[in-house]
Amino acid sequence: MRAVVKSAPQDGPAGTIITDRGRPVPGPGEVLIKVAAAAICGTDRHIWHWDPSIRSSMTLPRIYGHEFCGYIEESGPDVGRTDLEPGNYVSAEMHLVCGHCRQCRTGQGHICASTRILGLHGDGAFAEYVKVPATNVVRLNRELVPLAVGAFLDALGNAVHATQVVDLAGRSVLITGFGPIGAMCAAIAEHCGASTVVVTDVSDHSLETARRWAASKSFKNLHAFNAAASDPKSVREAIIDISDGGIDVVLEMSGAPAAINFALDVVAMGGFMSMLGLPAGHSLQIDDYTRNVIFKGITIQGITGRRMYSSWQRMLSLLKAGLDVTWIVQAEHDSLDEFEVGMGKFDRHEALKVIFYPHGRGETQ
Amino acid sequence: MRAVVKSAPQDGPAGTIITDRGRPVPGPGEVLIKVAAAAICGTDRHIWHWDPSIRSSMTLPRIYGHEFCGYIEESGPDVGRTDLEPGNYVSAEMHLVCGHCRQCRTGQGHICASTRILGLHGDGAFAEYVKVPATNVVRLNRELVPLAVGAFLDALGNAVHATQVVDLAGRSVLITGFGPIGAMCAAIAEHCGASTVVVTDVSDHSLETARRWAASKSFKNLHAFNAAASDPKSVREAIIDISDGGIDVVLEMSGAPAAINFALDVVAMGGFMSMLGLPAGHSLQIDDYTRNVIFKGITIQGITGRRMYSSWQRMLSLLKAGLDVTWIVQAEHDSLDEFEVGMGKFDRHEALKVIFYPHGRGETQ
Amino acid sequence: MRAVVKSAPQDGPAGTIITDRGRPVPGPGEVLIKVAAAAICGTDRHIWHWDPSIRSSMTLPRIYGHEFCGYIEESGPDVGRTDLEPGNYVSAEMHLVCGHCRQCRTGQGHICASTRILGLHGDGAFAEYVKVPATNVVRLNRELVPLAVGAFLDALGNAVHATQVVDLAGRSVLITGFGPIGAMCAAIAEHCGASTVVVTDVSDHSLETARRWAASKSFKNLHAFNAAASDPKSVREAIIDISDGGIDVVLEMSGAPAAINFALDVVAMGGFMSMLGLPAGHSLQIDDYTRNVIFKGITIQGITGRRMYSSWQRMLSLLKAGLDVTWIVQAEHDSLDEFEVGMGKFDRHEALKVIFYPHGRGETQ
Amino acid sequence: MRAVVKSAPQDGPAGTIITDRGRPVPGPGEVLIKVAAAAICGTDRHIWHWDPSIRSSMTLPRIYGHEFCGYIEESGPDVGRTDLEPGNYVSAEMHLVCGHCRQCRTGQGHICASTRILGLHGDGAFAEYVKVPATNVVRLNRELVPLAVGAFLDALGNAVHATQVVDLAGRSVLITGFGPIGAMCAAIAEHCGASTVVVTDVSDHSLETARRWAASKSFKNLHAFNAAASDPKSVREAIIDISDGGIDVVLEMSGAPAAINFALDVVAMGGFMSMLGLPAGHSLQIDDYTRNVIFKGITIQGITGRRMYSSWQRMLSLLKAGLDVTWIVQAEHDSLDEFEVGMGKFDRHEALKVIFYPHGRGETQ
Repeated sequence: MRAVVKSAPQDGPAGTIITDRGRPVPGPGEVLIKVAAAAICGTDRHIWHWDPSIRSSMTLPRIYGHEFCGYIEESGPDVGRTDLEPGNYVSAEMHLVCGHCRQCRTGQGHICASTRILGLHGDGAFAEYVKVPATNVVRLNRELVPLAVGAFLDALGNAVHATQVVDLAGRSVLITGFGPIGAMCAAIAEHCGASTVVVTDVSDHSLETARRWAASKSFKNLHAFNAAASDPKSVREAIIDISDGGIDVVLEMSGAPAAINFALDVVAMGGFMSMLGLPAGHSLQIDDYTRNVIFKGITIQGITGRRMYSSWQRMLSLLKAGLDVTWIVQAEHDSLDEFEVGMGKFDRHEALKVIFYPHGRGETQ
Repeated sequence: MRAVVKSAPQDGPAGTIITDRGRPVPGPGEVLIKVAAAAICGTDRHIWHWDPSIRSSMTLPRIYGHEFCGYIEESGPDVGRTDLEPGNYVSAEMHLVCGHCRQCRTGQGHICASTRILGLHGDGAFAEYVKVPATNVVRLNRELVPLAVGAFLDALGNAVHATQVVDLAGRSVLITGFGPIGAMCAAIAEHCGASTVVVTDVSDHSLETARRWAASKSFKNLHAFNAAASDPKSVREAIIDISDGGIDVVLEMSGAPAAINFALDVVAMGGFMSMLGLPAGHSLQIDDYTRNVIFKGITIQGITGRRMYSSWQRMLSLLKAGLDVTWIVQAEHDSLDEFEVGMGKFDRHEALKVIFYPHGRGETQ
Repeated sequence: MRAVVKSAPQDGPAGTIITDRGRPVPGPGEVLIKVAAAAICGTDRHIWHWDPSIRSSMTLPRIYGHEFCGYIEESGPDVGRTDLEPGNYVSAEMHLVCGHCRQCRTGQGHICASTRILGLHGDGAFAEYVKVPATNVVRLNRELVPLAVGAFLDALGNAVHATQVVDLAGRSVLITGFGPIGAMCAAIAEHCGASTVVVTDVSDHSLETARRWAASKSFKNLHAFNAAASDPKSVREAIIDISDGGIDVVLEMSGAPAAINFALDVVAMGGFMSMLGLPAGHSLQIDDYTRNVIFKGITIQGITGRRMYSSWQRMLSLLKAGLDVTWIVQAEHDSLDEFEVGMGKFDRHEALKVIFYPHGRGETQ
Repeated sequence: MRAVVKSAPQDGPAGTIITDRGRPVPGPGEVLIKVAAAAICGTDRHIWHWDPSIRSSMTLPRIYGHEFCGYIEESGPDVGRTDLEPGNYVSAEMHLVCGHCRQCRTGQGHICASTRILGLHGDGAFAEYVKVPATNVVRLNRELVPLAVGAFLDALGNAVHATQVVDLAGRSVLITGFGPIGAMCAAIAEHCGASTVVVTDVSDHSLETARRWAASKSFKNLHAFNAAASDPKSVREAIIDISDGGIDVVLEMSGAPAAINFALDVVAMGGFMSMLGLPAGHSLQIDDYTRNVIFKGITIQGITGRRMYSSWQRMLSLLKAGLDVTWIVQAEHDSLDEFEVGMGKFDRHEALKVIFYPHGRGETQ
């Protein structure tokens, strides 16, 4: 089968090959899935560039990819589930957790300390077939989840996780960073009845995408600001004004210390912050901790991965309810051999989500 | 000033007069409000009919009405607020609470044991002017809240309260009883991203209203069932099927024991029930408490009044976010002298909400 | 091996034999546990008497028992856990759940609709050995959990579940029904800083046990009332007085409709009720639903089983913190052959908990 | 009357006088309280030293003190409460809030942006009499709250607030900083059933106090570490070991960036942090935000003041339940004229709490 493989510890095309690999054989408790669609994620970009942050996690060669959907091809022995049949349309949680630690046994598997990630620590889904543990498979409804959306449920699950820890209905929401997950957060916030959605980013292109989306939905309460270009003081004042005194809920998607401090400055007394973005340097300087954390009495919630599996269930319910995220797909390719082209678009921020159909679109839809 | 007065302990026109009364004079801590619009509530109907349930709460004569909006006319001494000026567009919480009990001092004033209600225990807002404590006044934005909606914020607050105790996004919701508050609940559930909204009622007229509303919003996930006419077993099966195994959230607006037991039967394992409706006989027989309460592990939340003032704040935020409840107004009258006509429509369920403009529409809009 | 077997559909000794059975062989994913201690539960009494409520759940013959602790003897293939070794001191959750339904996948396995219970639907632990799925095994610390307590962790888990849904610190708590689980609830409430613990029961013997326990702990805030013998109005007034206006948290352990209505009457505005007791007739008449549920704005939470596995974790943490429940054990037997004697004491309410040591105390401690 | 007055913008005795002042006259809505006991707080120390952090908040002269209890002497007009009579034993919340903002109207008055503090922005309680708004008065029970404890309920309220946002029963708790509020947190954690209480401080004297307290309560699960003197790596390992893999709940009382980063390092996956301490420099560098906030998925809660008035209610309930904090009082003075002596002990950390009885102990107890 064709597969996109990180083959050598180098940046760009020198470290990645598209090649033929043997089809995986599902072991006990595993299923083999024919990949219908897969999406590029920020982690894949780190792998592509062989970023220092990713190096110690990988042994090469390794097949890329942890966002995908497909059809069950076959099951190994002892899968322990009676609801999985060949031909079922599915996706899978690609974080593999131990199942027995304190966190796993209390519905908190997303913070299992022994987490392994397929597409990073094990072979992933940028291939014609992928094998995953049966426990991690999630069945999808073909009428509610098109392939192009099924391809990035892992990322959508991040956005759902960041937004399910606080009720957004009637709240003013600030999204710092309008990359793919920020865009999904905006779609969720609008869908769930947020009164105001403020977006900040440093790319005018991203902000324009945000405005076009809002216009297409006749959503009048979107406000998009360029955090870099504008006068920060006037942006601050505008946001305080829009939010009647301060933002209720911050969805921090950038990891940029400047954005985090800006958000801390405009969040309301008693506000809530979902923190998902990772700073390049791992550390964070909070400029006015006394005023913005203590005296404001805010709540800060770290967000990682997706809740297993309440984020998945809520995600599917929101899609059933009509949540539209198809507009986030901005490039589609019918072959894995076009990987470098797609990665280029993603890398240059020309496309929020880039989808590949390893067997072509005709065959799998 | 003109006022609608419950004058005698009798049913219908014999017990109610529209008459001239002296304009109230605001005392210390009170403001006088010029009533722009007022709405009939179910309690007003009980007063109109001099229902046994209401008799012990009232001494006559008494001006009707606790749902209204208007403009501040003047303030008494020591109002203790600097944000209220003559001409301000406002509504008011008409439940007067003690302010010092355990509940009042912890943001739970809505369950103060010493609650007095204007329009019941004191004079209400079916008049040209009404006086209320300044603490209870809520400022409104004329652009976000039209008079016809400002007139029934009290009732909308009940619906908000019933829906703010649980996050509705992506949940399947059952509303038992599609009267005015049930209709508001449906609007809120749709707005807040519920995946499915099921309505049951015994009136085909009400169900038709629900379906027309959903059609007008292009909301595809509304399912309306006549609980009386239909085969209950097939309705049950349909709802279980629609909700993938059981309803996540029940909003019980009917008070009918049959409806409550039906809801208990279709609510999901671990489901949530907001209980607002009052049974005629005060008691409730739960048919299968073992299975439907204990073994299902559900949560049942009693709902009364509005949270002071988080329900008001959320209500105004939802209206800002675009929540549309104007369609619930189905009759409007330009004079309090038409009270009997309006009450008739409300009494015969011909109109969900009936609005009166004591000074006429021309003068106050 | 010796085992206590429900052998025939009859009440008492006629339907139960103590006999020799083959030692179970653990299959894939299962472990075999040498039973060190096991306790009689209310369900065992229903089985002993062949109560109508239990008949349809059982096919005979069947080994009794779902409360026990012991030592791992051996493992079957593919247990999927690396933290279980022969000789480990363990207990096990005896509710077997599907693992894949909506509830199981969100940390709510205790309300899985496909639950099977060992000791009822499958063979239980009143034997020298029992086999259970490895997923359900919980490791214990021999220094923190004596055998006599390890024997009834299943029941203690019920009490923990009923008390973990609400913070008890500084709250007034009413426990309706002082059977074994009510007694555990009292111990937990005292340990977790409840300001007042009120106990009601219809047995003076039980109330005396409660008072003796409080005295032994120098716990001054225990108040025990006989709900049957006393003047209910004066008991009501005493409780309202003790609790400064109403009980914060009710732990309903009796299932008696009279007790439930009494609790609804004395619970505070905005109070919380954990409902665990099962009424004999399955139905429940709430006498004043309007006043006590709606107008009080209370929360009612159905409690069944134990949360998998947060109740287990909390239970072990509380034992580590010094929670003492050893006083609840009031009878101990060194052989399963004394089953009828022990069941008699339990049946006549002479002992809250009755423990059996299938291999004798000497061998296993 | 005698009063301790910050009279000039200078450090120590040069800026503070004990002098005679006119007795305050309660205005509308105010009550005059005869001060029975008052306690020194950290803010008083900042005032004493005329720290830069405090200067802009004060206009001089100003009477010190916001921790006290006493007896109602007389009421001004329109107090609006019927439960306050001369002679009542009371304390008062000394944070005065607007009552009408978004926060005040939703039970979040402790984060009102318009908060004024008596003893800082207005005259305080280090005097024979103090006047306060009637709304802020809290009645006490003389049998449950001795004067020496009534004197510092404000500080105890901080500790209650920090501990009421998370259920401590059965949890491992780390308290960073064993000053007066840290000591109160330890008492609360032990009382509320924490499984383990770990204390870190840089003063061996403080740690010794912690150990003596635990010994006096026969509380075996207290572990005290000197964060400065010890090998931090071995302390870290010891805490990870004690807490079975990580601390469930951190109560951060120090404001020291090193302590905060240490706590972030040892908090468990999914742990909870209550942040009350204020860093000297206002800013905070989080060393490994990626790992310790995001990947751990923790919750960080800013804590300021006391919840009005749920912290007060819970505090009184805990005292009723037997919470003992009398040991935190380590110096008592019968006259305000000994202020400098008492402040010296407090300033040199020789006493956790220092109490003054402005009318002498004999007269008021």
